[in-house]
Amino acid sequence: MTDTTDMTERAPRPMGHRPRAVQPGEGYEAAEILTSARSCVDPELRAAVESLPGSMRRVALYHFGWEHADGTPAAGNAGKAIRPALVLAAVRALGGDPLSAVRAAAAVELTHNFTLLHDDVMDRDATRRHRPTAWTVFGDADAILAGDTLQALAQRLLAEDPHPGAPAAAARLAACVVELCAGQHADCALESRAPGEVSLGECLAMAEAKTGALLGCACAIGAVYAGAGADTAEALDGFGRQAGLAFQLIDDVIGIWGDPARTGKPARADLAARKKSLPVVAALASGTPEGEELAGLYGRETAGGADGPEGELERMARAVERAGGRDWAQLHAADRMSRALGELARAVPDPERAGGLLALAEFVTRRSH
Amino acid sequence: MTDTTDMTERAPRPMGHRPRAVQPGEGYEAAEILTSARSCVDPELRAAVESLPGSMRRVALYHFGWEHADGTPAAGNAGKAIRPALVLAAVRALGGDPLSAVRAAAAVELTHNFTLLHDDVMDRDATRRHRPTAWTVFGDADAILAGDTLQALAQRLLAEDPHPGAPAAAARLAACVVELCAGQHADCALESRAPGEVSLGECLAMAEAKTGALLGCACAIGAVYAGAGADTAEALDGFGRQAGLAFQLIDDVIGIWGDPARTGKPARADLAARKKSLPVVAALASGTPEGEELAGLYGRETAGGADGPEGELERMARAVERAGGRDWAQLHAADRMSRALGELARAVPDPERAGGLLALAEFVTRRSH
Repeated sequence: MTDTTDMTERAPRPMGHRPRAVQPGEGYEAAEILTSARSCVDPELRAAVESLPGSMRRVALYHFGWEHADGTPAAGNAGKAIRPALVLAAVRALGGDPLSAVRAAAAVELTHNFTLLHDDVMDRDATRRHRPTAWTVFGDADAILAGDTLQALAQRLLAEDPHPGAPAAAARLAACVVELCAGQHADCALESRAPGEVSLGECLAMAEAKTGALLGCACAIGAVYAGAGADTAEALDGFGRQAGLAFQLIDDVIGIWGDPARTGKPARADLAARKKSLPVVAALASGTPEGEELAGLYGRETAGGADGPEGELERMARAVERAGGRDWAQLHAADRMSRALGELARAVPDPERAGGLLALAEFVTRRSH
Repeated sequence: MTDTTDMTERAPRPMGHRPRAVQPGEGYEAAEILTSARSCVDPELRAAVESLPGSMRRVALYHFGWEHADGTPAAGNAGKAIRPALVLAAVRALGGDPLSAVRAAAAVELTHNFTLLHDDVMDRDATRRHRPTAWTVFGDADAILAGDTLQALAQRLLAEDPHPGAPAAAARLAACVVELCAGQHADCALESRAPGEVSLGECLAMAEAKTGALLGCACAIGAVYAGAGADTAEALDGFGRQAGLAFQLIDDVIGIWGDPARTGKPARADLAARKKSLPVVAALASGTPEGEELAGLYGRETAGGADGPEGELERMARAVERAGGRDWAQLHAADRMSRALGELARAVPDPERAGGLLALAEFVTRRSH
């Protein structure tokens, strides 16, 4: 199952702390942009959540990490704010005033969190941002209802925003939700099929809908708020989508070969869960003997051969690698990143102006470095 | 549990068929208004649903009764269209053009259906509009996702509507969703508490949020589309809310004393389910010996006394009646209806113009006649 990730779990680099030796555009600038976006958007987000009736407010405050399960205040761990940062960076790149789009950025972040709440219920995921998921604390019904209210809050923010771009942004965000839902459906459907019955094209389409669509939408909403034309908005949508796919490919590589000390997850977690991640599906579709071997291993529960369950996970990882799944994923991520840069250059020809968006795209796709 | 009803289940009067002897304003006029609203709004609704990606479209077409579970076309049984009819009738009552508000009416109906899809999942209700609920056919995940897409579609319709009232309508609808969710949460929470621990005030507040809010919102959106001021919109919101509460009270009376041949549900169904409906809670809170007796009967599973399970349900119904629960509900419904008429007169002083809204309010609160 494609991880419904918010780019937090596997990015343990401390925020607001300046690393000593960092390449420009490869983390430091992005970290500043993210910190700045978080501090712009959080008050708007928090005010929106505080406006909810008590029952729904409680679940939302917990989900955003602003309260513990018992209702006492918590430090907050609401994710890296990639999507709001993309909205604001897109506005800035196109010469608009990022402060005019803070509500829109908050609406995008509320929408993202609505999908996290619902996806966790459907996927029975028990952990999110290193804490128990809302449904494990408050039950399915309250997690579903809190998700519904966050979707409504997002649209309310836009409907009440007097900015002339607000209606077009609202329409884009609503259309994006439909795509996110179709992506989540496809993910659930793919996971229930046999390993050999899943094509790479289907998996890429699913990842684009589930991960790329909202990153693209965030950028496009920024374009709309900057008063840009439809072509520019579409190009920035494409930029976000392609960067989102690159992110997903890298994330899937980390899900197999990532260092548990950095990811916070057990080694080979995605293989243990028999996740049909992109490198795995590429290996299964490779027509190689190692692909065949992987299909056999994936088809049965982890029972382990003579070398026990861990040995079996190691054999799977080796099979994916030898079948070319790892190389394919890394090359394909680079390809998607290159397409993203093409779209970015189309929308924002001046590389100086495009710098913020570029830094964010590099940040999300280079998190393993 | 308060029935998440769409005023279809228990209203078997055939649509579009003129009854022979009917009082003006008590069904016939309403039936015409409803048929007309359905025929105006259905094409918009259908086009919105047809725009969905295949996986979500399939669940939505099934939910609206336009397709069978196997995807073959069905006659359609999408409910009585009370809420869209209220939108259009409110526009007309205030001198606007109802045709300008067809998208808004469709958005309200989509929102209603989003809540039905989710409520059925949470309440584990297996039947809706005389058919298996979507989650029983497609599973929880697809029913949740289809609900999410209908909420998004509703907001998309409004965001793409060039009508000057659209943003205010979108904001009202989003705020209403938050209230609906809080109402559904309160309903679930009340049902899990012991019979003696539920107050009438809490139940009325829950019913207002869960049933009254969207009827009020439908009327207020009509006012907004007619270009009316905030006071008029608030008064029409109050009209819809109060009529909604009157409806819920009557619906709860029917749930205990309704004729199974007319309701399509087993006799005493709400008592068998130990539903904390308004007449029951009024009886429990009455301080009478019969209220005490009812608390004892409600506290245990239906096992039946010497007279068996049906005898026990009869004893419960008698206890509710003797404790004054039935009379209270009917009087209180009349009181709410009277408040509704007061709000209506405030918004639309000319009784001639108010006729359509009045007929609809009478229709929903007199369905047992």
